[in-house]
Amino acid sequence: MQRVVSKPVHLSACSLLALLFPSLGFSAVPQSTIETWVAESAPKVQKIIEGGKSENHSYLKLQELCDDIGNRLSGSPQLEKAIEWAAETMRRDGQENVVVDPVVVRKWVRGEESLGVVSPREMRLSMLGLGGSVGTPPEGITADVIVVSSREELDALPDEQVKGRIVVFNVVMPPWSPTEGSGYGKVVAYRSNGARWASERGGVAVLVRSATARSLDSPHTGAMRYSGGSAVKDIPAASISIEGATLLARWQARGITPRVCLKMSATDGGEATSGNVLAEYVGREFPDEYVVIGGHIDSWDVGSGAHDDGAGCVAAMEALAILRRLGMQPRRTIRVVLFTNEENGVAGARAYRVRHGDEKHFSAIESDSGGFAPQGISVEMTDPAKQDAAAAQMQQMLTLLKPLGATEVKTGSSGTDIQPLLDLGTACMGLSVDGRYYFDTHHTHADTVDKVNPDQLTDCSITMAVTAWLLAEMPFQIGDTAKADQSPDQIPQNH
Amino acid sequence: MQRVVSKPVHLSACSLLALLFPSLGFSAVPQSTIETWVAESAPKVQKIIEGGKSENHSYLKLQELCDDIGNRLSGSPQLEKAIEWAAETMRRDGQENVVVDPVVVRKWVRGEESLGVVSPREMRLSMLGLGGSVGTPPEGITADVIVVSSREELDALPDEQVKGRIVVFNVVMPPWSPTEGSGYGKVVAYRSNGARWASERGGVAVLVRSATARSLDSPHTGAMRYSGGSAVKDIPAASISIEGATLLARWQARGITPRVCLKMSATDGGEATSGNVLAEYVGREFPDEYVVIGGHIDSWDVGSGAHDDGAGCVAAMEALAILRRLGMQPRRTIRVVLFTNEENGVAGARAYRVRHGDEKHFSAIESDSGGFAPQGISVEMTDPAKQDAAAAQMQQMLTLLKPLGATEVKTGSSGTDIQPLLDLGTACMGLSVDGRYYFDTHHTHADTVDKVNPDQLTDCSITMAVTAWLLAEMPFQIGDTAKADQSPDQIPQNH
Repeated sequence: MQRVVSKPVHLSACSLLALLFPSLGFSAVPQSTIETWVAESAPKVQKIIEGGKSENHSYLKLQELCDDIGNRLSGSPQLEKAIEWAAETMRRDGQENVVVDPVVVRKWVRGEESLGVVSPREMRLSMLGLGGSVGTPPEGITADVIVVSSREELDALPDEQVKGRIVVFNVVMPPWSPTEGSGYGKVVAYRSNGARWASERGGVAVLVRSATARSLDSPHTGAMRYSGGSAVKDIPAASISIEGATLLARWQARGITPRVCLKMSATDGGEATSGNVLAEYVGREFPDEYVVIGGHIDSWDVGSGAHDDGAGCVAAMEALAILRRLGMQPRRTIRVVLFTNEENGVAGARAYRVRHGDEKHFSAIESDSGGFAPQGISVEMTDPAKQDAAAAQMQQMLTLLKPLGATEVKTGSSGTDIQPLLDLGTACMGLSVDGRYYFDTHHTHADTVDKVNPDQLTDCSITMAVTAWLLAEMPFQIGDTAKADQSPDQIPQNH
Repeated sequence: MQRVVSKPVHLSACSLLALLFPSLGFSAVPQSTIETWVAESAPKVQKIIEGGKSENHSYLKLQELCDDIGNRLSGSPQLEKAIEWAAETMRRDGQENVVVDPVVVRKWVRGEESLGVVSPREMRLSMLGLGGSVGTPPEGITADVIVVSSREELDALPDEQVKGRIVVFNVVMPPWSPTEGSGYGKVVAYRSNGARWASERGGVAVLVRSATARSLDSPHTGAMRYSGGSAVKDIPAASISIEGATLLARWQARGITPRVCLKMSATDGGEATSGNVLAEYVGREFPDEYVVIGGHIDSWDVGSGAHDDGAGCVAAMEALAILRRLGMQPRRTIRVVLFTNEENGVAGARAYRVRHGDEKHFSAIESDSGGFAPQGISVEMTDPAKQDAAAAQMQQMLTLLKPLGATEVKTGSSGTDIQPLLDLGTACMGLSVDGRYYFDTHHTHADTVDKVNPDQLTDCSITMAVTAWLLAEMPFQIGDTAKADQSPDQIPQNH
């Protein structure tokens, strides 16, 4: 499908607006048209909110996905079962053009794994191998550990204190705060790159303190990567709990050098076929313009991927179901996309861009921060001026979500799976939610359905429905740098 | 040793008081003597606080006990190692009369255990067998589950819905609140008695939702008991995490009957010899009157028993060490008792009573609520009037702990290990601490040293030192029903 030329859209938008709101007399009286349009949209939004509250199957969908199917690592039978379930469920919801776009993914297999302290006393430590890690020899790697609290500290050590050792990155993740949010961004590089950093200094394996600020002896898995070259050896990488990391650190601080044995039979399982699931509510006026809403259907192989990202998937699925039940066909097509392989490869996002990059993507919303109380939207566009303009427009539109408390607009990040659409000029958005608990269960055995509050998940799906519907109805160009108080025909046709 | 007759104590107390504070002229001018004594004690208490702050080995002791030795279930080699360590450490601290009183304990051995869901899908559930439980046959017990949220709900079910099933008690523990404290007391009976209740209705095993309000897929073990008769069969009992219990409940609510397989090779390991560890700072005036301070040296066989009750043990040990370092020999003997087998048998407490019940126990303080910020003391005596009087006295004394914020006096509970001393007239006390996190890690893999804040543990040991020292110095009878504003010679000699 070719990209739709934008100019006629604007002309149509203007004419439609005039048709819809003849009393406004846009061309005659310049006024705050977006405010007016938002105000006019209020009854329809109210209808979506009421409809979404009176009938909502988000939590049932979440149970079917996460309780009944379970976790869904790329290459696993469960992921393929989940993809089938999602397609079938959206067909049953009455959606159109439900398809599974095939995606080739890399399969990583955890296998058996364990971490034992050999001295000063024998004990097991909780651990999870990091996704993408190589395994150890069958007998494991037994070595003394060296504990550091930062890369700088590692790099300052003399060779003989690192060579042949297992490097432990005991890096503290700051707790969530209202101003700073989570501390995940400050420490995740150790999970991603720790193996390379340790190997560069002669380490034989790496143990990374889990990226969390709360732990009940909980290891958090996640993706890691090697340098890709042959300069440094690919060494095994595992996460350990805060409890394990601090125990090793306390021993070292007291002059005791702990010796551990790491066993991992992790392997690269080659290529596997997975898929992105698509479903649409075809637009009544611009069927070839897309407002994408979605999340990622894969998860790590622990817990049941409830907040990450079962919640995002079912919020998008149910958002479309709400609109379908209300018969609120949008002007543009709203397309649910459930991306595969977000966790360890992002092959789904790349494949979507390859297959659908020529289509006109008006905007895209990803929910991948958990199914907590929605707070608003984060807007990301490549052009900073457009991003600011889009944020200002969204700020107006989200006033309608006051009943759900989801009125906050931020800029700067959207979602991993929709980022490949950014350079198409797409207005990419992330659903913002109350983030204080997300990283407590992220990539752990405890990311399960009980952590998701049914009412909050309901509100997520309603927020998705409202936001998608407003974007799909929008009689303006999103991110247009024209002032909001210009009339539509004064808005530059720069899209 | 015979119990000391009380009257001379009071006479001595009075004479001593007159000697110590001649300026007060007690016999001439009736006044608020306890207030005066407390005020006079302030510099000494200040000395203990300062001494305890400037040098304190509580956290190092905790590491030696919990990091280096680990958890300490009755009958385990680790417990005996811990007992040796405690005795040796207190000898090194310069304490007197360090002995290990032998105690015969019952040994329970967990063995291998697992819980798997068979349908609707195969998966493992986190579990911990309950202490004292029988095992299953080697092939396990495979049965449909019936989930109930209370005993009443179980009892209301028709036989055919329970017989041959594995009963799941999905009982919600209320979260900690400032007014109610923890909800542990409301649910612990299910762990203790659930097997009997389930068996009475024909259940073949019982799975009890862990007694906690916070979970990261965390099972909490603990003691359970059978009826002891032959009327109902002893069935295996295990704890499951909130995540597991709610998953089973959600399936049942949707009309799905989960089927699980429980395997436990738990056995009764017969009798083993353990011991209570005693150490003293012998009193300068009444060496045969005892102020006991202590905790329990055993723990469950998961985590490292840091808050439960490593912290209590090291707080008592360090309290005595602080006084010893300061050379503050008390009037009465302060005796550390580290009881064995509190978790699953209370044989240590019973043995102490048998062996030492004839000795005069002025008071006893147990710390078994974790090494959190101390808040004060909870006072328990069999005679309610004496209990109130003791509480009033303690209230005065604890004003001196204002620098630590440990001034709160409650009544009604003290500690499991010192309860056998209650009917001797002993003023039994529990160290009160900030309780909001205790049950998050109680009896789990996560009860580890990192959960204990070094400064808070230091304050626990100082609070123990100050309280024990004040009790050991007290020129009054504890719990005397005389009014606080009577002079000592007006206080009835009713002890």
